[in-house]
Amino acid sequence: MPEVVPLRIERGRGVRIIDQTRLPGDVVELELRTLDEILEAIRSLRIRGAPLLGIAAACAMAIAAETEGSDDAALARAAAAIRATRPTAVDLHRAAEAARAAAAAHPTPEARRQALWDFAEGMLAAQRARDEAMARHGAALLPAGASVLTHCNTGALATGGLGTALGVVREAFRQGKLARCYATETRPLLQGARLTMWELVHEGIPATLLTDGAAASLLASGRVQAVLVGADRIARNGDTANKVGTLALAAAAARFGVPLYVVAPSTTFDLSCPSGAAIPIEERGAEEVATFAGIRTAPAGAVVYNPAFDVTPAELIAGWVTELGIVHPPFAEVEARLRDASERATIH
Amino acid sequence: MPEVVPLRIERGRGVRIIDQTRLPGDVVELELRTLDEILEAIRSLRIRGAPLLGIAAACAMAIAAETEGSDDAALARAAAAIRATRPTAVDLHRAAEAARAAAAAHPTPEARRQALWDFAEGMLAAQRARDEAMARHGAALLPAGASVLTHCNTGALATGGLGTALGVVREAFRQGKLARCYATETRPLLQGARLTMWELVHEGIPATLLTDGAAASLLASGRVQAVLVGADRIARNGDTANKVGTLALAAAAARFGVPLYVVAPSTTFDLSCPSGAAIPIEERGAEEVATFAGIRTAPAGAVVYNPAFDVTPAELIAGWVTELGIVHPPFAEVEARLRDASERATIH
Repeated sequence: MPEVVPLRIERGRGVRIIDQTRLPGDVVELELRTLDEILEAIRSLRIRGAPLLGIAAACAMAIAAETEGSDDAALARAAAAIRATRPTAVDLHRAAEAARAAAAAHPTPEARRQALWDFAEGMLAAQRARDEAMARHGAALLPAGASVLTHCNTGALATGGLGTALGVVREAFRQGKLARCYATETRPLLQGARLTMWELVHEGIPATLLTDGAAASLLASGRVQAVLVGADRIARNGDTANKVGTLALAAAAARFGVPLYVVAPSTTFDLSCPSGAAIPIEERGAEEVATFAGIRTAPAGAVVYNPAFDVTPAELIAGWVTELGIVHPPFAEVEARLRDASERATIH
Repeated sequence: MPEVVPLRIERGRGVRIIDQTRLPGDVVELELRTLDEILEAIRSLRIRGAPLLGIAAACAMAIAAETEGSDDAALARAAAAIRATRPTAVDLHRAAEAARAAAAAHPTPEARRQALWDFAEGMLAAQRARDEAMARHGAALLPAGASVLTHCNTGALATGGLGTALGVVREAFRQGKLARCYATETRPLLQGARLTMWELVHEGIPATLLTDGAAASLLASGRVQAVLVGADRIARNGDTANKVGTLALAAAAARFGVPLYVVAPSTTFDLSCPSGAAIPIEERGAEEVATFAGIRTAPAGAVVYNPAFDVTPAELIAGWVTELGIVHPPFAEVEARLRDASERATIH
């Protein structure tokens, strides 16, 4: 079957993305040629998933350099605009700043633009390599014949590679050790139903969809041997922000003795953040919960609480699967890797 | 504001119900005049909620006696058909059998029909009285200024009276001790968003809607002092079957130190059932999860796990609020009350 490619870089012109808000009904590709277009795509979740957002941010910086100017002031404005689209997503901010740093060393507009495209292409290639390493490390944790539960979408559509948590599922299936992947629908935006189930059905991996609320009874039943989730930001103590609903899965998994693993590349760690209490949580609009496809599902005037993420405390997490292997707080290996990456970025 | 009356008994003819599948958009009343019509309404959740299902079952027996015959064989067939609509709901089965017993003592078809209408009217009046008692006992458990979290719909639309868990919310609001009621949307059928929020907004009770998955972070935040849920069946050891998603709330509430109370009349206890393992769990169709309003939310071919209920183990429940007060396993007071009721039914 054709590989799912959620973002293609068209050097010098822009990017081509799959509009993820149109799945699973339609596969619609969008060509994004201006900074406003790519910011709108990020804000509207046409492109989403922490690692892919980082790549999108790098692409947005390259597009900004083509269309808005490549001097320091223009790139600083672009980076600020990118950061403002999704305040919880650390990958967006870090990638935009790293792209700025990569451009800053070059004296001419043309060299800066080329450096920014090089940076975006390099990020995408590096993510693909990290996904493969995470998938191998994660699959090794699973017993033969394992069924797993996952949440939200952490697949190719989220990273541009194999995916994070769903990359582990893919690799376990490839190795013949996966019995079934259960996927929560992931309210309110149904990324599990729309995107994860689409990827799994597309690749012929045995998969079952359930509501977020049904996952606790599945965990209590003993039919699942591991919970695999991604992350949006991981604090130094291991507290992990991820799609809302993760904390509910973690509390139930702990209660019923099922290990929960966070699968995330080193770039999702924010070791300057001491604990989950310091992670800002984006609240999104009421209409995501109170309406569906334009139909009201709650009475007019209903107040809505709609956090996009929640924070799972470290003690509910059995391990963090990274490209470096399985790690635990305070994440010394991750810190060393991030320091190396930062030094390389500064030298270039 | 006008009282919500989800079921009116029209003696000798049938019942008039609010079609709960049309809320919150439209308030549509249906006149049900045949056994098939009321069975369809139960099966399609136009009428739902454990206590109101019991009343509906009694009405269905009276309607059957009018239209299908009132001899023992006809009433036995009607009771079996009623039971088959929703196998987990003990109230349906018990009410149909009690109605049969109430009719059996009478020699003529006319006397049997009148006895069945008397029985249905008596059940409705008794439920209203029980709801008021539960509301008082439950409200006394809450601290002043409490915010509470509830799940699914347990209000007037579920019982025909004040409601069970939502009756406690109403009474706490009436007493001036309620700060806010948080209501989960309750996937897949959104009874919380559609019905509970409609009742709360209608009566001006401060209310906030959230997804099922967001409830864990609300509980972790300390903003809620109690979780109040209803029940579909309570086993002798206290294990409690309720709308799917309850177990997830219970696991999170236990983790974060928030008491969870089950609010249910004595009629919801099934003391012949030793534990939750013996409670059959209804699985419903895939389309409830994989589509919304006719729009596919999952890819074609997606397998779905859609249990209607889950079982919360007794150790996660702080207390059971009944019309008899707050009770705990093995529920001696409930057993005595059910024995009395059974003896009265036999004598009549």
